[in-house]
Amino acid sequence: MTDEGLLVDAGLLSPVRAGTAVEAAVGDRAWLQAMLDAEAALARAQASLGTLPGEAAAVITEAARAERFDLRALALASRETANPVVGLVQALTAVVRGIDPEAADFVHRGSTSQDIFDTGAMLVAARALRLVRADLARTAQALAGLARTHRDTLMPGRTLALHAVPTTFGLKAAGWRALVLDADARLARILDEGLPVSLGGAAGTLAGYLEYADIDRPDVAADTAHPYLDRLVDAFAAETGLARPVLPWHALRTPLADLAAALAFTAGALGKIAVDVQALTRTEVGEVAEPTAAGRGSSSAMPHKRNPVLATLIRAAALQVPVIAAGLTQCLVTEDERAAGVWHAEWQLLRECLRLTGGAAHTAVELAEGLEVRAGRMRENLDLTGGQVVSERIAARLAPRLGKAAAKQLLTEASATAAESGRPLGTVLTGMSGAGHGLDAQYIARLCDPAGYSGAAGALVDRALADVPQSPPRGPTA
Amino acid sequence: MTDEGLLVDAGLLSPVRAGTAVEAAVGDRAWLQAMLDAEAALARAQASLGTLPGEAAAVITEAARAERFDLRALALASRETANPVVGLVQALTAVVRGIDPEAADFVHRGSTSQDIFDTGAMLVAARALRLVRADLARTAQALAGLARTHRDTLMPGRTLALHAVPTTFGLKAAGWRALVLDADARLARILDEGLPVSLGGAAGTLAGYLEYADIDRPDVAADTAHPYLDRLVDAFAAETGLARPVLPWHALRTPLADLAAALAFTAGALGKIAVDVQALTRTEVGEVAEPTAAGRGSSSAMPHKRNPVLATLIRAAALQVPVIAAGLTQCLVTEDERAAGVWHAEWQLLRECLRLTGGAAHTAVELAEGLEVRAGRMRENLDLTGGQVVSERIAARLAPRLGKAAAKQLLTEASATAAESGRPLGTVLTGMSGAGHGLDAQYIARLCDPAGYSGAAGALVDRALADVPQSPPRGPTA
Amino acid sequence: MTDEGLLVDAGLLSPVRAGTAVEAAVGDRAWLQAMLDAEAALARAQASLGTLPGEAAAVITEAARAERFDLRALALASRETANPVVGLVQALTAVVRGIDPEAADFVHRGSTSQDIFDTGAMLVAARALRLVRADLARTAQALAGLARTHRDTLMPGRTLALHAVPTTFGLKAAGWRALVLDADARLARILDEGLPVSLGGAAGTLAGYLEYADIDRPDVAADTAHPYLDRLVDAFAAETGLARPVLPWHALRTPLADLAAALAFTAGALGKIAVDVQALTRTEVGEVAEPTAAGRGSSSAMPHKRNPVLATLIRAAALQVPVIAAGLTQCLVTEDERAAGVWHAEWQLLRECLRLTGGAAHTAVELAEGLEVRAGRMRENLDLTGGQVVSERIAARLAPRLGKAAAKQLLTEASATAAESGRPLGTVLTGMSGAGHGLDAQYIARLCDPAGYSGAAGALVDRALADVPQSPPRGPTA
Amino acid sequence: MTDEGLLVDAGLLSPVRAGTAVEAAVGDRAWLQAMLDAEAALARAQASLGTLPGEAAAVITEAARAERFDLRALALASRETANPVVGLVQALTAVVRGIDPEAADFVHRGSTSQDIFDTGAMLVAARALRLVRADLARTAQALAGLARTHRDTLMPGRTLALHAVPTTFGLKAAGWRALVLDADARLARILDEGLPVSLGGAAGTLAGYLEYADIDRPDVAADTAHPYLDRLVDAFAAETGLARPVLPWHALRTPLADLAAALAFTAGALGKIAVDVQALTRTEVGEVAEPTAAGRGSSSAMPHKRNPVLATLIRAAALQVPVIAAGLTQCLVTEDERAAGVWHAEWQLLRECLRLTGGAAHTAVELAEGLEVRAGRMRENLDLTGGQVVSERIAARLAPRLGKAAAKQLLTEASATAAESGRPLGTVLTGMSGAGHGLDAQYIARLCDPAGYSGAAGALVDRALADVPQSPPRGPTA
Repeated sequence: MTDEGLLVDAGLLSPVRAGTAVEAAVGDRAWLQAMLDAEAALARAQASLGTLPGEAAAVITEAARAERFDLRALALASRETANPVVGLVQALTAVVRGIDPEAADFVHRGSTSQDIFDTGAMLVAARALRLVRADLARTAQALAGLARTHRDTLMPGRTLALHAVPTTFGLKAAGWRALVLDADARLARILDEGLPVSLGGAAGTLAGYLEYADIDRPDVAADTAHPYLDRLVDAFAAETGLARPVLPWHALRTPLADLAAALAFTAGALGKIAVDVQALTRTEVGEVAEPTAAGRGSSSAMPHKRNPVLATLIRAAALQVPVIAAGLTQCLVTEDERAAGVWHAEWQLLRECLRLTGGAAHTAVELAEGLEVRAGRMRENLDLTGGQVVSERIAARLAPRLGKAAAKQLLTEASATAAESGRPLGTVLTGMSGAGHGLDAQYIARLCDPAGYSGAAGALVDRALADVPQSPPRGPTA
Repeated sequence: MTDEGLLVDAGLLSPVRAGTAVEAAVGDRAWLQAMLDAEAALARAQASLGTLPGEAAAVITEAARAERFDLRALALASRETANPVVGLVQALTAVVRGIDPEAADFVHRGSTSQDIFDTGAMLVAARALRLVRADLARTAQALAGLARTHRDTLMPGRTLALHAVPTTFGLKAAGWRALVLDADARLARILDEGLPVSLGGAAGTLAGYLEYADIDRPDVAADTAHPYLDRLVDAFAAETGLARPVLPWHALRTPLADLAAALAFTAGALGKIAVDVQALTRTEVGEVAEPTAAGRGSSSAMPHKRNPVLATLIRAAALQVPVIAAGLTQCLVTEDERAAGVWHAEWQLLRECLRLTGGAAHTAVELAEGLEVRAGRMRENLDLTGGQVVSERIAARLAPRLGKAAAKQLLTEASATAAESGRPLGTVLTGMSGAGHGLDAQYIARLCDPAGYSGAAGALVDRALADVPQSPPRGPTA
Repeated sequence: MTDEGLLVDAGLLSPVRAGTAVEAAVGDRAWLQAMLDAEAALARAQASLGTLPGEAAAVITEAARAERFDLRALALASRETANPVVGLVQALTAVVRGIDPEAADFVHRGSTSQDIFDTGAMLVAARALRLVRADLARTAQALAGLARTHRDTLMPGRTLALHAVPTTFGLKAAGWRALVLDADARLARILDEGLPVSLGGAAGTLAGYLEYADIDRPDVAADTAHPYLDRLVDAFAAETGLARPVLPWHALRTPLADLAAALAFTAGALGKIAVDVQALTRTEVGEVAEPTAAGRGSSSAMPHKRNPVLATLIRAAALQVPVIAAGLTQCLVTEDERAAGVWHAEWQLLRECLRLTGGAAHTAVELAEGLEVRAGRMRENLDLTGGQVVSERIAARLAPRLGKAAAKQLLTEASATAAESGRPLGTVLTGMSGAGHGLDAQYIARLCDPAGYSGAAGALVDRALADVPQSPPRGPTA
Repeated sequence: MTDEGLLVDAGLLSPVRAGTAVEAAVGDRAWLQAMLDAEAALARAQASLGTLPGEAAAVITEAARAERFDLRALALASRETANPVVGLVQALTAVVRGIDPEAADFVHRGSTSQDIFDTGAMLVAARALRLVRADLARTAQALAGLARTHRDTLMPGRTLALHAVPTTFGLKAAGWRALVLDADARLARILDEGLPVSLGGAAGTLAGYLEYADIDRPDVAADTAHPYLDRLVDAFAAETGLARPVLPWHALRTPLADLAAALAFTAGALGKIAVDVQALTRTEVGEVAEPTAAGRGSSSAMPHKRNPVLATLIRAAALQVPVIAAGLTQCLVTEDERAAGVWHAEWQLLRECLRLTGGAAHTAVELAEGLEVRAGRMRENLDLTGGQVVSERIAARLAPRLGKAAAKQLLTEASATAAESGRPLGTVLTGMSGAGHGLDAQYIARLCDPAGYSGAAGALVDRALADVPQSPPRGPTA
């Protein structure tokens, strides 16, 4: 490989995925291997139906190893044909010829670039999704533990940046887990329904495959009881482990759009956790801290800082994936049997979605498993407003006596007085006996205790934890 | 309503949805009604559990009609509180008080703006999705008809803007239908899994609802055998016809992200049809024409034009929805129990996705049902390249004689000669007898007939048409 | 106007712009008027060159008032032709005919829909930009006041959610102002370079205009010394107050892309201010508060809350505009002399960018002019870390004695000890005399005072305030 | 470098930039070098002011060569601190120490990660923009040649996919050139106004720089006549060749948003050319062809095809950049003095915009310089509609006789008859003498000649070519 090719992207600008398994699984070498896997699977599928010599399929399979090829040279050659498959077929044919000249003509037989590229892309995507799912499963499990442990750990519920009413950290963690399960369900659905092989030939009619079959084995091609069309797609699907599509999908890009949507969802779901962690990490809030590790989170300038780097990496991914995914979704709008440029725009966008989301999921495992929760700080913060955090409750209790509107108005005024004077809301209210609320100081004090106003938080945690993922990930292997 | 409010948007800039049912279903008046429906359903749900007087629920239901309210005034008031519900609750309370003063305190009891807004939004979305599905069903049916009728209508398959190999119009229409079915399946899944009610109270713990229940009916609130939490959510879901979520989703925006994804998919799928229709409509191609109607497609300048306006409108929507949907998806990243601005960013984006996609689906019905297919022109175009459109086939036939590479090289040269000289490929090939291909003129002529090289196009149409939608739309009502 | 048309959008879902001047300036009625202005200006331009009777131009100008037309009917009719101009020309012709039958034939003479629509759109955009600029000017002025007043008001500088080193509120406000000036400069550039008239005729050659001129005034059309082409474009530009483009830009969408970029920038710049205000408003931080107004910021549930609604509205806009603007930018990729759907996709996207950004600017005025700054709270927060906020400084002071790495390591350990024990960093350091730092307690105490480590904050404020906007807005008129 | 790092991205999925100069200029190695350049420039700037030993600056400069560092190891380390600079400073310090232990403490003196990263990013961006501008200049020049050569080459103007009125290829090429000049002007403005150095220290106050200056040279730090603040920024700007900003811009991301906008514009402008080329390349249209080169545009399946690969590559880039750029623009919304994740999201997005746009510009040179224009085919196509392409003209000529509406109606009918019957419009019209148009056959024939109705196309080309770029690119160096 030429030197400069090596230095295009080593992960320097994308720490969220640098060195992760998903980065390797979707890298150029992996992609090259997946395309070679597609070529070899095609040959074996044809051989299994008798339309290609078994020896040739074996040689092609043997030849189809990424390390035999000059990746950078293939990338450079792709400029001439707008896709890397044309050059790959030439290079693969040469390797095959070197092993067995008779097998060379059976490479890419009846095929087209898009069949190989898209089948390879689906192999890459399936492998990456399995990695992501495994990380989501670990994340969800860790979050379930947090939700269980902190089922009743009181903290301020915050809306529009302000303390609203009390909630619990358990409910927050249960919500995070619910989002992770939602994300996983969307990825699982894609894998369960099956990413499809691409097998359409030059313009989606499979004409080339059928023509070669007719040349090589007219009897097989003509067997109407066992249509070669169906047998070939089935065999290719079986050889790759991918699904069989109803129609060739060269210009029907459902699988790409589905991947885009599920990956954007996953990145966004993880991003929600990240911004929550950041909000709770703020110096003044201090309710959680990221797991510590030697050197982790250090600053180049400030010795005292332990930056929340995991949440930072996840949020960085969450900011990127949705717009990149939109680019992929737009590629649904693609004219003809293969549009000039629309198909080609998908590739890097898909990879970026896969590795950013995969990196975020990988990072989320560490964040969820190691998150330090400071229950004491949560309780202190809950008391910061001197009881205003339960103004809703007191208004409710006064409503039957004063009417709902008057009760709310009374609390609005009392809260303002409390905020300005710095006195607890209960004290202010007790002093407003002339307002006719008729509550005694003791009752007011009891109402003002945030611990008594967490609503159904605990019960909701229980219900959420009873909601288990339906389709456990099958592990990162394929 | 003040005058200027009326003229903000009457559809002038968005013809794809101007005057369609979906425009009305997601307009401000419909949205207002849906929020009122949510308030009324909440009151009835509480009444059904005994925690609110049945008379009050009846009065609230009676009061909750959009025509009683000044829509523009509510819109203007929303600037003060960043959402329209605060003002709506005040206005609704006033209307209720005018009917029955005792009922006024039971409006919005224990509730929060987001519960009402989001429940209303889900009602609006559900109604809109049903309209879209009905239009997709009609579109798919019309496309099935086209696929069946033109199962064997030959036309050029086109890739990278050029004739590739023959295909059939039936296969193209079957592909369009497959995309429409895919879109419909994604919308159906959302409706089948159920868009959820929002019921969380101020910060997602339902504390306000429980507090009022405890005030009004301590026995009901304390019944552990029949937790009020579950009963209230169930009753609210029953009253609205929406689904029951596992957790309050104020800050867990799965339903919005799912809608964004399904709507972007649908718009993109219809956009694919539109750009195909445009490509085939081009003056030089002329293989299809849009249905004609009086005045339809006329130009302000050119008397001869019959512009493909339906495809134009659909494509315009397909260009807008994916980026707008990306904005919605990004709102997954929302801090706290309710973020200041992220929730608020969703509203108009959601409506725009619904009405653009709905308008596109409505337009697609007319396009699919009326599309004029010019089989003769397709056949003429197929002959334009003088047989080059089957160069792949001839190369395949020569491969066993010359070797695959040499065969391809021979055809590349012959095609270039044919293109330069304007002679048919068959003639050129016949004249190249020195090239050793050994084919006689008659055989070459037969190979060069595009009609013999449509591959599995017909069989694929059959298989695609056998794929029926699993969940038929339940009609625009409900 | 039919009833349902009135209720499509009264601002209910977009409080950031409901009732603002910019909403009216870009609403359907304003857009209709702008297109009528274009028709009238075209007629007057032609009349000024003698190729159209002056009386006809006067009648067309008289007829071209939006209130004469049924907006909703025009919107509905636009579905038939994919744009609203075809129907508008018919309606305008009818109105003109009603005034003076002889003038009717001179409506839209030689013109095409896109010339009228795009010229109207530029008029709308220019008017809206002037409104936005006026609001940005007020915002910048208010921010300058804040920067000046709080030049030396210390507060914690925060990076990655944590206290970093001290800064001043003046520097923060000066930064906000700099962004607002940057936004204004980008809008000013668009207005200064001039939004262009559209004048190309059916396909950008002006053939229709020239043909009619040749029919009506062959002498004028043939005057090579004063080419009619140039005279007509100049006259149209003069009548509309817009600029003269080098080429017809039907398919060269620079003006739209420039608007998209400048508006996305402006919304993003204001969004930065909004998220800063939110971060500083958090209950635990409390360093700023939004201006109060009766009813402003109230919650439907919680009496004590005064939600930061202005920042909420601005952030909601800032989340929407960039993706919508991306949709506009993509419309640069538009085939032919006018693409079927790409032009049409721009309209609503442009309006949404204009009114969301305009609404955000309008809201920012109020936020900047009324922001309450709590210097005392800032100082308290600065002390929260017990001196760790200046760990960088102490490390610098120790570097010459211990070496830079050892100094940083010492401070890292001391900071960790301080954080765990809750003791001030200075105390911890003083107690680490064995570490060889050789600093006495008094010197350490002086170093640990955050007030001594605000760097060049004050001087930077001075330099920033000396940077004045170059092109003051010319006011909302014209 | 570890092996797997090498294979992350060698260009396989992004042929538009594989192997181009811009790919190398923005690759990880170049980015690393740029950050090292920033460190060295900072040291030299400090040395030039006397606050750092000149020997140390020389050693740091000597050490700051990318080939001394393990790029992949730096990338992997960046996960621990969320940015690559912390690890880079450690590695650079080690290299410096190896050369001269005394110089080690002067590395990164007073600095912060963001100053180094952002300054490096601006160096990278400036170098890339110069490459892009050089390619745009060549493209514009080639397009000017096409416009000049084909000033009067008639072709059909096409709107909404249909022939509208005649235009010339010269006008089309002049329009393409105008867009390229517009793009170049936007890039030039960024370079002319100057991409800025980043120099703010830990939180934008420069406190660290000032503190070290005060330690090392109190006299220099205290010289109020020559404020060190200004001198340091000036010196750093001078050493890097970048501009001096008014304020530190850690959280004021104008430079990034400007780059995003200009690059999205450029990609979109080139995308317009690409889709036009594709539309004209279609088999049925055949009015242009891409330049041929051996192997260029070949298909893996179809020997006859010469795919328009250059336009394909450009369009693929144009589909990606605007959404990616939107992601960058959104990063304007970044809280605090440095947001956790928002800054980090920019990096890869910026690189992708730079290299996709740069690749597209590089590809456009070849497309523009080699485009084959088929004037004969254009003329043939212009005749395809049998004169309908000038229906506008005939309607204009009839308007004075019949009234405008009646004339248009007559032409609408005649066009429909012509289209249905396949007869030329002139013949149909001549036969409609009963319609009262009063035109004789000869005059009709003259009117129907498309050559007489190209409007001001030629004059517009002249005017456009007289519009020269104001700021010629200064070449790819510097």
